[in-house]
Amino acid sequence: MTTTSAVTTAQDLDTIAARAAAAAPRFADTEPEARARALAAVADALVANADELVGIAGAETGLTEPRLRGELKRTAVQLRLFADTIVDGAYLDVRIDAADPDFALGRRPDVRRYLVPVGPVVNFAASNFPFAFSVAGGDTAAALAAGCPVIVKGHSGHPELSRRTAEIVTAALAGAGMPDGVFQLVTGQAEGVAILRDPRVRAGSFTGSIHAGRLLADIAAARPAPIPFYGELGSVNPVFVTRSAVDERATEIATGYVASVSGSAGQLCTKPGFLFVPESHGLDGAIAEAAASVAPHRLLNPRIAAAYAERRDAIIGTAGTRVIAPGGIEFDDEDQGWATPTIVGVPAADLVAGRDTLLEECFGPLSIVVEYPPGADLAALVPRLFEGNLTATVHAGTGEADAAVQALVRVLTEHAGRVLLGGWPTGVAVTPAMQHGGPWPATTNDSSTSVGTAAIARFLRPVAYQDAAEELLPAPLQMANPWGVPQRFAGPGECGRWGELTAAPAGRAG
Amino acid sequence: MTTTSAVTTAQDLDTIAARAAAAAPRFADTEPEARARALAAVADALVANADELVGIAGAETGLTEPRLRGELKRTAVQLRLFADTIVDGAYLDVRIDAADPDFALGRRPDVRRYLVPVGPVVNFAASNFPFAFSVAGGDTAAALAAGCPVIVKGHSGHPELSRRTAEIVTAALAGAGMPDGVFQLVTGQAEGVAILRDPRVRAGSFTGSIHAGRLLADIAAARPAPIPFYGELGSVNPVFVTRSAVDERATEIATGYVASVSGSAGQLCTKPGFLFVPESHGLDGAIAEAAASVAPHRLLNPRIAAAYAERRDAIIGTAGTRVIAPGGIEFDDEDQGWATPTIVGVPAADLVAGRDTLLEECFGPLSIVVEYPPGADLAALVPRLFEGNLTATVHAGTGEADAAVQALVRVLTEHAGRVLLGGWPTGVAVTPAMQHGGPWPATTNDSSTSVGTAAIARFLRPVAYQDAAEELLPAPLQMANPWGVPQRFAGPGECGRWGELTAAPAGRAG
Repeated sequence: MTTTSAVTTAQDLDTIAARAAAAAPRFADTEPEARARALAAVADALVANADELVGIAGAETGLTEPRLRGELKRTAVQLRLFADTIVDGAYLDVRIDAADPDFALGRRPDVRRYLVPVGPVVNFAASNFPFAFSVAGGDTAAALAAGCPVIVKGHSGHPELSRRTAEIVTAALAGAGMPDGVFQLVTGQAEGVAILRDPRVRAGSFTGSIHAGRLLADIAAARPAPIPFYGELGSVNPVFVTRSAVDERATEIATGYVASVSGSAGQLCTKPGFLFVPESHGLDGAIAEAAASVAPHRLLNPRIAAAYAERRDAIIGTAGTRVIAPGGIEFDDEDQGWATPTIVGVPAADLVAGRDTLLEECFGPLSIVVEYPPGADLAALVPRLFEGNLTATVHAGTGEADAAVQALVRVLTEHAGRVLLGGWPTGVAVTPAMQHGGPWPATTNDSSTSVGTAAIARFLRPVAYQDAAEELLPAPLQMANPWGVPQRFAGPGECGRWGELTAAPAGRAG
Repeated sequence: MTTTSAVTTAQDLDTIAARAAAAAPRFADTEPEARARALAAVADALVANADELVGIAGAETGLTEPRLRGELKRTAVQLRLFADTIVDGAYLDVRIDAADPDFALGRRPDVRRYLVPVGPVVNFAASNFPFAFSVAGGDTAAALAAGCPVIVKGHSGHPELSRRTAEIVTAALAGAGMPDGVFQLVTGQAEGVAILRDPRVRAGSFTGSIHAGRLLADIAAARPAPIPFYGELGSVNPVFVTRSAVDERATEIATGYVASVSGSAGQLCTKPGFLFVPESHGLDGAIAEAAASVAPHRLLNPRIAAAYAERRDAIIGTAGTRVIAPGGIEFDDEDQGWATPTIVGVPAADLVAGRDTLLEECFGPLSIVVEYPPGADLAALVPRLFEGNLTATVHAGTGEADAAVQALVRVLTEHAGRVLLGGWPTGVAVTPAMQHGGPWPATTNDSSTSVGTAAIARFLRPVAYQDAAEELLPAPLQMANPWGVPQRFAGPGECGRWGELTAAPAGRAG
């Protein structure tokens, strides 16, 4: 069995699950600093092989070289950020309650709690980010950082890239001294389902369509022993523009909008699907001009291209719509679709009437400009139109923060994980404060994020030790604290107020 | 519609969900300090009504007055601990990334993230803790602390207590200025399922049997918009005693074991279901004597009593078992069962052979002493016998921490949320470091706890704001920081290492 076989057999799957399970305790015991070095080694190896990887990715996905080089860089930066996140051990959330003979409820024992890796994780790779949400992407980086063996179910859209990336990752991890079996690749749809059902797998993550994500989430929930499944599914990312904003910077909004819609041919989970603007906004010309200047871009694969063409026809054919920028899609001899951006206008009332067709996510370079009448209550419109989204954006005028804008921002936080004031939702920053997740169907679990350093939390679970002697405690919970991780203490009589408990108590051993 | 009607109708359910949904944004906007005061007011009101509540509880559950008074006190302490947990705002996990024009991936925006309440929560109350895991119990305290409206599905085992407790909680919250609709009670099994399916409900929590918990978890997962469901289900809490420990303190182990098994008539989720001891342990006499001194205790209700009698017969009738302390159960004229502790012995080999009958949780005062041969590899036995548990305990000799004990402790952390070295798992401390949750089937989600201040995390989700002006940010994310909550900053160029980022950056406004 190798991790690079093109087809994964049932025999392979059993071996893969067994190897991951065998690696789990040894990997869990590695010091965070060692895993941080390993993550950095993976980042270095990807960068060292950038020319080869970008070449394969371009051929398999149709994405442009600048986009792919940027994405590879982002993937390497992401790995290094997770290395930074774990290296000091703060992510372990160590909590130590001192024994307290006089606690309100009788003797309180010595209880020490920290986070441990959940065990083997299966990551389902996405097609639209062949680096950043694929074999060595964010979910892999987060799970490895947490100390979980990773099994990636490679996406069929870039098989050779998946195979080659897996080779590079496997070699880099081995070179950094990580245990055998901490990283493996499986291929095939049925194989992905089978490995998700394997009792040795303890969590799943996914980026892709609502349909496939729901299917996998249901499988994870229906296992004899259910496991958490973190799916990032669909999002239409509405943008709301006030009259003041249009008056102030019409052209900037029009060009920014078209650039965000057409980047990577609109195949991004944060593509703005709707731009709400006041009636008689006067943006048509600038939007049409910006759209006309975008060169045809190949969609990821023939299946996506065919689905896009069909959705595009249905939207254009819906009552009340008009075409602002026609764009289109043309198919080559290999059934690949080459698309230019299509922008459709519709009055708000017709969007409500045509919601069954219009509101569903359209994966590709199409977006809808929704025209609202003067005095429209945008905050009231939001819950009528939208479930959960990854993002929602408000473009207000400079200094505009009246009650209407306040109410709109407020209601958007109930329907999205990230609310932007100005700017565009594409180009997600990978930082500690980033939230990439939102209420269903944006994600299966809106208390988690799949981008940013907080994404590591998905692959950790707490364990507490009660009245354990120093020599039976794991390193992070020992008073000697050999790894030097931050420890928070509740001394006798203390309990809440974790913000205050950052220092070691007086008289502490070690 | 009142919250105290004995029967909840479909009309009521719609009103209840609507009231909770209407309360959600207003409750979310309350300052943590105000919610802390409200939680303390609930605690005070419960204590002020202790005589009446304990009287009703005793009649409805058969639990003893000292136990119920202790449990009511614990419930009040728990409410005050959650007040302490939220009052300084550290639980909001505020993260602020400064904008950075020179970030590795191009301009990084200003991103600010904190935790917001998920929305209305339905808590399914347990029968065995009529205060601490019921109407005003831990799940209610945690959800209210988080800022989520709570709908409690009262347990049929103590209907009058549920009704009266709900009245007291509702009045205390109203008296503390909390919005109308933040706390409501529903009754009836079908009504509980219906409210869990209501789209306005955003999370569920539960304490009870594997059967009922799995049913509800499946319903939550199968909703058109799935929601997280935190179930605390079944646990057999194995205890492992080494030869040295037996040699050192045989009588103490025997009496402590029987006390832990028989407390509250064994109707505790942390009751030790198995005591692993070396062959020829010589504990029989002390165990039998301790068990014989325990007075008959009424089980919670006739259904539980009948199920216990049946399980007891099946266990005693399994090949290889012998009775160490017979105990028994007698039924009164109202079909209530009065039980005394039954302790059964079995060789380890017969436990493995009889696993289908013996390993299932027995809810009531029965426990099994498992005798292992000299040189038995206990660490290897654990994964063969047990799935997930809330707790696992090791009794070793003083200073005994050899490789065998180390290996046993290590493997137990993979199968339990809390590992005790000495002592007994019943009597769970409510503290910051407590972990009350474990791999399936102990809980539906082993990354959460249902006891201790960390339980609040189940009812929070992150929201990020990008490039928002101060006046459009919620209070905890403003530079002015009007609530004075802890804020963690990543300045330009900083990213990981959250342990270091506790202070405000130089030159910070406000």
